[in-house]
Amino acid sequence: MAEEAGHEFKVIGTRPVRHDGVDKVTGRAKYGADYAFPDMLHGKILRSPHAHALIKSIKVDKALALAGVKAVITGEELPELPDKAEPIGEVPTNLRHTALNVLARGKVLYNGHPVAAVAATSPHIAEEALNLIEVEYEVLPPVLNVHQAMAPNAPILHPERRTRESPDKPTNIASHVQFKGGDLEAGFKQADFVIERQFETKMVHQGYIEPHNALAIYNPDGHATVYTSTQSPFEARQLIALIAAMPEGDLKVVPAEIGGGFGGKLMIYMEPLALLLSKKTGHPVKFVMSRSEVLRATGPTSGSTIKVKIGAGKDGKLTAAEVWMAYEAGAFPGSPVGAGAMTAISCYEVPNFLIDGYDVVVNKPRTAAYRAPGATNVAFAVETVLDELAERCGLDPIDFRIRNGVKQGSARAFGPPYKKIGFIETCQALKNSDHYKSKLEGRNRGRGVAFGVWFHAGGQSSAVVNVHNDGTASVVTGSVDIGGSRASMAMIAAEVLGLDPASVRPMVADTDSIGYTAMTGGSRTTHSTGAAVYEAAHDAVRQLKERAARLWQIKPEDVDFTGGKLVSKNNGVPPMTIKELAAKFGRTGGPVSGRAGVSARGGVGTFAGCCVDVEVDPETGKVQILRATVAQDAGKAIHPSYVEGQMQGGTAQGIGWALNEEYVYDEKGNLRNAGFLDYRMPTCLDLPLIETVIVEVPGPDNPLGIRGVGEVSIVPPPAAVANAVYRAVGVRINELPMSPPQIVKALRKN
Amino acid sequence: MAEEAGHEFKVIGTRPVRHDGVDKVTGRAKYGADYAFPDMLHGKILRSPHAHALIKSIKVDKALALAGVKAVITGEELPELPDKAEPIGEVPTNLRHTALNVLARGKVLYNGHPVAAVAATSPHIAEEALNLIEVEYEVLPPVLNVHQAMAPNAPILHPERRTRESPDKPTNIASHVQFKGGDLEAGFKQADFVIERQFETKMVHQGYIEPHNALAIYNPDGHATVYTSTQSPFEARQLIALIAAMPEGDLKVVPAEIGGGFGGKLMIYMEPLALLLSKKTGHPVKFVMSRSEVLRATGPTSGSTIKVKIGAGKDGKLTAAEVWMAYEAGAFPGSPVGAGAMTAISCYEVPNFLIDGYDVVVNKPRTAAYRAPGATNVAFAVETVLDELAERCGLDPIDFRIRNGVKQGSARAFGPPYKKIGFIETCQALKNSDHYKSKLEGRNRGRGVAFGVWFHAGGQSSAVVNVHNDGTASVVTGSVDIGGSRASMAMIAAEVLGLDPASVRPMVADTDSIGYTAMTGGSRTTHSTGAAVYEAAHDAVRQLKERAARLWQIKPEDVDFTGGKLVSKNNGVPPMTIKELAAKFGRTGGPVSGRAGVSARGGVGTFAGCCVDVEVDPETGKVQILRATVAQDAGKAIHPSYVEGQMQGGTAQGIGWALNEEYVYDEKGNLRNAGFLDYRMPTCLDLPLIETVIVEVPGPDNPLGIRGVGEVSIVPPPAAVANAVYRAVGVRINELPMSPPQIVKALRKN
Repeated sequence: MAEEAGHEFKVIGTRPVRHDGVDKVTGRAKYGADYAFPDMLHGKILRSPHAHALIKSIKVDKALALAGVKAVITGEELPELPDKAEPIGEVPTNLRHTALNVLARGKVLYNGHPVAAVAATSPHIAEEALNLIEVEYEVLPPVLNVHQAMAPNAPILHPERRTRESPDKPTNIASHVQFKGGDLEAGFKQADFVIERQFETKMVHQGYIEPHNALAIYNPDGHATVYTSTQSPFEARQLIALIAAMPEGDLKVVPAEIGGGFGGKLMIYMEPLALLLSKKTGHPVKFVMSRSEVLRATGPTSGSTIKVKIGAGKDGKLTAAEVWMAYEAGAFPGSPVGAGAMTAISCYEVPNFLIDGYDVVVNKPRTAAYRAPGATNVAFAVETVLDELAERCGLDPIDFRIRNGVKQGSARAFGPPYKKIGFIETCQALKNSDHYKSKLEGRNRGRGVAFGVWFHAGGQSSAVVNVHNDGTASVVTGSVDIGGSRASMAMIAAEVLGLDPASVRPMVADTDSIGYTAMTGGSRTTHSTGAAVYEAAHDAVRQLKERAARLWQIKPEDVDFTGGKLVSKNNGVPPMTIKELAAKFGRTGGPVSGRAGVSARGGVGTFAGCCVDVEVDPETGKVQILRATVAQDAGKAIHPSYVEGQMQGGTAQGIGWALNEEYVYDEKGNLRNAGFLDYRMPTCLDLPLIETVIVEVPGPDNPLGIRGVGEVSIVPPPAAVANAVYRAVGVRINELPMSPPQIVKALRKN
Repeated sequence: MAEEAGHEFKVIGTRPVRHDGVDKVTGRAKYGADYAFPDMLHGKILRSPHAHALIKSIKVDKALALAGVKAVITGEELPELPDKAEPIGEVPTNLRHTALNVLARGKVLYNGHPVAAVAATSPHIAEEALNLIEVEYEVLPPVLNVHQAMAPNAPILHPERRTRESPDKPTNIASHVQFKGGDLEAGFKQADFVIERQFETKMVHQGYIEPHNALAIYNPDGHATVYTSTQSPFEARQLIALIAAMPEGDLKVVPAEIGGGFGGKLMIYMEPLALLLSKKTGHPVKFVMSRSEVLRATGPTSGSTIKVKIGAGKDGKLTAAEVWMAYEAGAFPGSPVGAGAMTAISCYEVPNFLIDGYDVVVNKPRTAAYRAPGATNVAFAVETVLDELAERCGLDPIDFRIRNGVKQGSARAFGPPYKKIGFIETCQALKNSDHYKSKLEGRNRGRGVAFGVWFHAGGQSSAVVNVHNDGTASVVTGSVDIGGSRASMAMIAAEVLGLDPASVRPMVADTDSIGYTAMTGGSRTTHSTGAAVYEAAHDAVRQLKERAARLWQIKPEDVDFTGGKLVSKNNGVPPMTIKELAAKFGRTGGPVSGRAGVSARGGVGTFAGCCVDVEVDPETGKVQILRATVAQDAGKAIHPSYVEGQMQGGTAQGIGWALNEEYVYDEKGNLRNAGFLDYRMPTCLDLPLIETVIVEVPGPDNPLGIRGVGEVSIVPPPAAVANAVYRAVGVRINELPMSPPQIVKALRKN
């Protein structure tokens, strides 16, 4: 492990032109909605107009009678799956809930919950048919946030469910996670300063440009193919097969080019419906969501209520922390509160702590993963309180963090102590940044900083590296490219093979054409699939040595491979390039391909820090971001431009959370801003060019020192902006988003 | 080698449902013409109306001025490539000729020779534009057969070329091959009977249903993709790149599903034009040939003139053979006369022989490979003469062949003696067939037999076998499936892995997604790619053993893999299925994929015999095939139904040659029957159900004993039909096809 981490790299760390760039900018890349097949039907979904209701009856006769309608499906036709967490890929998933979210049975749990699906010869006919489906509902009162959901006598979403904590009585609290250590009471007693605050955040959406889509072709021999934009083709295959009640091996998932995911394309929605409707009709069936459907009925991340109490001594050392979190799961259990609890105080050494997390179902869409899911909410709370504590201690906010920051060997709230990590280095990098060293002047202006921690997952990945007869190579993986992994994979193979990265062609294969590869997500891809590519390229190198040995009539162990050349250790033959050897593959044993499957170790240990300068308009409440810098530990940046892109993207999204994004529900549970005009994502007018500082503290669990870089940069910005707003106008905002009305309200209260 | 040839097989030799069957019969398989891209242009080709002419000038201005026309290309824009045989894949190919056949420069050499190509917004506009291109020709007299071409003072197709045999003077004889052995004169002196005859055969086409097609997308970054129906995606990539003057590694060829090839889809035609026009226009460009273009301007196989003189003793032993062959190459050198010479007498032990073969250019389309290219022509001649000799010797025609037939150790006209072969077994199988043992009665009826030999090529193939987490597997190869190789590859992997073949999914990958794999052709695929799959599956098994060893905490060498189960040799743990182990891949090291590249050894040694019963209508000359049986040595039949399909298909094509198929040219060199109404292929009304007898004498160069089976069955039928006609009506026909006018003429002459 980490064997090459100290090496000089030739390819890794450079910035070659991305392999898929032209296809993407010219519109040739094939996204999910671009697939079409002859005789294809179009699917549409009837969605619940109620946030909470019993389905008394569904009549589909009139819809079926409409010319052009070929089939209708309702929840009764989906299998009853067990209400327990089954491993899907490497992630425990509740199949019953996933199936019920695909199509409701007996009850609807949020406005937008699918109730029936139609396949027709045109999307317009399918849509018309939706109006002909008669559903009788018995409307129930909804619960729309954790306060309502956790109140005594709250309406219950899942009356049939019992939990370990509440074995006798139904509850909307789906689960409770707790970490504790030390002596909390003693810790707070030691403190010179104790700050206690409560925070509220709203449900927010990933806001990927490309809506969800699914095209299924079911063949009469029982085999099927699903084309879909997904971050996790192998997990999708398993889930779709289970919900469509077919053998997994008979299903092939072809991952389309993906127009953004950020975690939201790890879950399935219409895929099993497309498949079952294709089975029913004998035609290919395609679904493409509208933007409104995406916002109403895919997976945003949790709104939350968080209480934080942290104590520190005058010396600036933390003594105790108590964090209470309740996260909205949406309609089915599964908020990221667990990850929130795991990250809550994990940047810091806190001797005494108690962390409680509650996963709470509410009548809103089932949440899905969203970039460092769970961490941003709690970091907003913790990093705001720490900012206040730093001020009380009279310390620079970064110095305060460095004083308490975790390092190799530091204990964590859970699990073993940290391996080699780069938190302190990240703090120092931000402190030494141009930005932080610059002066900020002017009225209503302020600077804030905040930090965050996230995991990078490991898990299973496969790779094949083909060395072609012209001396070029190709890399085949099962990792959908959402953040530049094509380029990274080609570069890793090029590094090992001593090739120019432009002559290594990266391919993303379907689920039949490559070995199992877990999701593109959890910051795992460059780390885990990268490790598979690294091993596969070395498998190819082993064979190249054997071939050279055969040509030179020496032993394979007497051949070295250095600088992209095969070198004989023990006689005077001149070194041979891969290109020269490749031309002789035919007479030395045939083509050379390397392969590897890995089960990589993941870990906690990616850190980011953010510094923002803001100017607040006290009249309108508008917060303008003047300057933003993000520092992040990449372990080893394979393609720095892509790493910077991830850092900038995460920061931009974090600023969206900070300032404008929120799901707005009315009291009946109707989403009132289900479109990009009203769901206000940051645009280029809202953001400066985000400055980036890549820190490189090699990760201990990857042969190249890689740490996943895709997520953590979203974590600090909301707190950094809140801290900056405080310095600009003197009020601490405890609610997200810090939208103009919110700011004005807070200023008036002040 | 042949290590498993004696084993009991569980999967190999069974007849599972073909994996690609449903896609093909439901029309879902995607053939070349099915591909389309946004903003795609359509290409059309202007073709020479003359068989032989100088191009004095080409004016394209008017065509370019037509609305919708985006680009025109002429031969001047193609690179000048060397006039010598360069290795393309593993086959020496004359690049200059290939380029000139793609687009003429300075001279046209056959009616249909491409002169210019247009890309326009619709195929109709492109076609209209062709009429606006002004070409000034100076018409030259054509030569249309080997007699004209070899005559003194014949018009010369390639006046600039010189050959080894004619270094000073241009000639239409492109090359001469000769094999000789023993003492020919003495051999004929020993003979009691000597028969000498001359034969004529006509140019014939493979008649695949799907016309040639090519769709190219050239990206501004220099990378390109070509979608095309091809038997040889890797060779096509190399050829296209050379002719389009781009680096091979920047081109990806995606092989479409293929609607028949029979050798005719090994060559490229419009692919470089599509690519260059895409480069010129920035749009995808697609070409699809019409049937008339396919017949006029792709690669049929040679017409030929063959003289055969063979002597035998009264004992029926052959004493001497002299074979003189001249094959039409078409417009550029490269007839299969060499293979004709190599196969001419290779079924028999002939102590004294002289074989001469001449490759002769004529003003007809450049010939391409067609199922056992070169062998059918000469077998028609030799097997007819042998039939006559058998009669003179008073021997049953099969016994006569058995008496002289080759076996392991027999000398050949070229190369080392035979390894293990199955010619005698094939003769005996045909002799013991129901058909041959049955009586044929009735007027004008007769039975004929004939035999043939062919090679099976080896060469480079790659394979990847993925074992999936549900315990199923997939096989990825680069071998386009024209004869059932998907099923065979899945079965070989299933055999090694102990799986049901239905749970092994075979995939055909593009040139970036798999290692180099030579053409599907030359009867090499099941043999060579099959060997790669076999090795790749074993590579997976090795890893499965390591995984089981890790789980059981024993050494990998203490794990056996038998009957699809992992078995511990040294302790009492119960055996584990792949499915059970696959569920634990994640915690034993990740996914399991096997890979292999092979460079397989090819060889001479596939034999077939054909028996046909015919009835001749002496008034109309129509020959009706009453019954036909083919026996063939498959080495080991992987999927017997597919082997039988190849045997039936080859026999059907051979009967087409025998009775009806021919290119009809007028004296100016215009093809007069460029359509399936006039180019008369056999239909189901012309053919009985062809009976098959699979012989299995394991091949020595394949781990499973496989011999290629795709070609040799085409070789015997023309001679078998001629011999049957002789027995039916007493005349020996020495010309193909034995069409009704030919039969009537021969009967009248009699």
